[in-house]
Amino acid sequence: MLLALRDIDLNRGMPPAEAIPSLELGRIAARLATSRDDLFQYAPIGGFQGDKALRNALAEVHGEDDPDNIFVGNGSLQLLDLLAASLLEDAPSRVIVEAPTYDRAISIFRRYGAQIEAADIGADGIDTEQVEALVREGRPAFIYLIPDFQNPSGTTLSFERRRHLAEIATRFGVTIVEDIPYRELRYWGASPPTLRTIAGPEHVITLASLSKTLSPGLRIGYALCDPERAGMLAQRAENTYLSPAPLCQAVAAEALCSGLVRGNIRAVRELIGPRCKQATRSAAELFGDALIARPQGGYFLSLSFNPAVDETELLLKAAKSGLRLARGSAFLPTRASTLETTFVRLPFQALQPPRIAEAFERLAAMLREMVRY
Amino acid sequence: MLLALRDIDLNRGMPPAEAIPSLELGRIAARLATSRDDLFQYAPIGGFQGDKALRNALAEVHGEDDPDNIFVGNGSLQLLDLLAASLLEDAPSRVIVEAPTYDRAISIFRRYGAQIEAADIGADGIDTEQVEALVREGRPAFIYLIPDFQNPSGTTLSFERRRHLAEIATRFGVTIVEDIPYRELRYWGASPPTLRTIAGPEHVITLASLSKTLSPGLRIGYALCDPERAGMLAQRAENTYLSPAPLCQAVAAEALCSGLVRGNIRAVRELIGPRCKQATRSAAELFGDALIARPQGGYFLSLSFNPAVDETELLLKAAKSGLRLARGSAFLPTRASTLETTFVRLPFQALQPPRIAEAFERLAAMLREMVRY
Repeated sequence: MLLALRDIDLNRGMPPAEAIPSLELGRIAARLATSRDDLFQYAPIGGFQGDKALRNALAEVHGEDDPDNIFVGNGSLQLLDLLAASLLEDAPSRVIVEAPTYDRAISIFRRYGAQIEAADIGADGIDTEQVEALVREGRPAFIYLIPDFQNPSGTTLSFERRRHLAEIATRFGVTIVEDIPYRELRYWGASPPTLRTIAGPEHVITLASLSKTLSPGLRIGYALCDPERAGMLAQRAENTYLSPAPLCQAVAAEALCSGLVRGNIRAVRELIGPRCKQATRSAAELFGDALIARPQGGYFLSLSFNPAVDETELLLKAAKSGLRLARGSAFLPTRASTLETTFVRLPFQALQPPRIAEAFERLAAMLREMVRY
Repeated sequence: MLLALRDIDLNRGMPPAEAIPSLELGRIAARLATSRDDLFQYAPIGGFQGDKALRNALAEVHGEDDPDNIFVGNGSLQLLDLLAASLLEDAPSRVIVEAPTYDRAISIFRRYGAQIEAADIGADGIDTEQVEALVREGRPAFIYLIPDFQNPSGTTLSFERRRHLAEIATRFGVTIVEDIPYRELRYWGASPPTLRTIAGPEHVITLASLSKTLSPGLRIGYALCDPERAGMLAQRAENTYLSPAPLCQAVAAEALCSGLVRGNIRAVRELIGPRCKQATRSAAELFGDALIARPQGGYFLSLSFNPAVDETELLLKAAKSGLRLARGSAFLPTRASTLETTFVRLPFQALQPPRIAEAFERLAAMLREMVRY
């Protein structure tokens, strides 16, 4: 029986191969690599903020009037590292995050001495009343949020809560860092405006990436901020890794200008939309109230079981059922939370709808023996 | 008169365009980008230590018996950052460096809380008696050296001094970090063995790079160390930037395997050798004892004037003579040194021999009014 089960990966949040236009990217890379010899040299002086053509293209996409508002980093993780170093420079300080949140973000903030405070996430995103209470205790260095199709929970921050956050940012002078790698991957429905739009660019730094809309291998993440901040990030980049590879930046610029990114986003929506629909339907049927939110985009949905079960036992049993799960507690910024609930992230982006149904049924059968939901 | 002078750049240590085989690199990149679709995806699990084919090729080049001894970083500066973080993790500690040394290395070590101690460099490299005295005061976290054609001084550490350092490393249990980006660019004479060879791999971590032998734009730096250290660096890389761009790593692997790197090193030696010869001859004639060493490779030679002159005045006068000089004091790890001597780095790698002669004559004419040498 065990041998008959094919393993199903519910672990990694990486794009499926079909979501990356490798053929077209290969053609662009081939043309640029054989026609421009500056791409194998160091970035030019002044190039540490990012390739100029790439920053121009990104400014247009995001409606920023000045390409100097944009800093291109070496992938969005490295960018988050530089930004955290910059925002936490003066003194180790408090950072408010969502619970759960992106595990690597937590470890980066801790690396720079931040004390992590968390507000719970629900179907409408982070609980902004909790955020306000935390801010009233003392102004944090910044609030870090993934407002659209959040990794790991799949929730999207509602318009009302965005407005409340904007008000908190304005009233208390708090900086918000919004990380929006999944925002363009909306499969149905309409997106609320970004926090940068609602609260204004003076309160919000937006982090974005081409990893989910074009290619993770190009390692292109970027920030929308003000020219001063962008210059400071460029200075830190120069002292840490100089610049991203010029070839990768040139390929990204060309992919944006030629419409490849725009076309690929449409293709990815068509590819993953049915997977999101199947995942949401199956999860609602099988897990009921344990389903935290019904995502309309992105890669993830998630479950929360209360009271908690033994997570290690859960992962082992899942593995025996042929399901590779990520350790949900890694996404919880504070240890206390792990005791109260068990959190399970379910990435659906890389599985065909029938496989999603099969995986979730297998998971449900297994969970029925362990959990009440 | 001023208008007649063409500006000469004696500032940056970047390879001249002719030293980068852009055409061949472009062809390799074109072939790989259009035939492999994994190059636009995230690095595979286990790929954070570097592309396997690239590590195999580098192991062969350096005579390492195990590719797991190799960590491929995102350029050698980022690599130095990860390594410093790793070696200075437990407690901020002392680091012994050469005076002068690579300015960005100093700022990285300071970033991780290191107290910088320096031993003077002479024609034979770092003064190892000074190093031993510093080590006797207390074991440093590590000793950082650029033993071959050092940036910025152009000196090469003699065999005798390498042996003394190996003895210090063994006797006092000190780790040496040797950074050898210029080692392969020897234009005449024979190289002493690396410190890793003399002192043994248990005492020495070697940092190297393809920036000077192939292409800086690929951003490929690497460390030769032990598998445990390489694994720790990979873990840090995963938590900081994930991995270098897979396309760049694949191009580098192919350039090593196809013989392009080997052939390019020969071409670069033929290109820069005559520049090195001209620079050394002119400098010996014009600056006499102020010339710190007669380099047989690399990019730099350097001058030391004692007593010191006003550096800002020197740079301004040079600019008026059409010479862009780097600020030599930036390479001095301790402030005290700036008061005793004036240090001038002169990169020769990017200038034709007659331009080198012209630049040095202009510099000499200008200096005669300011300095005794």
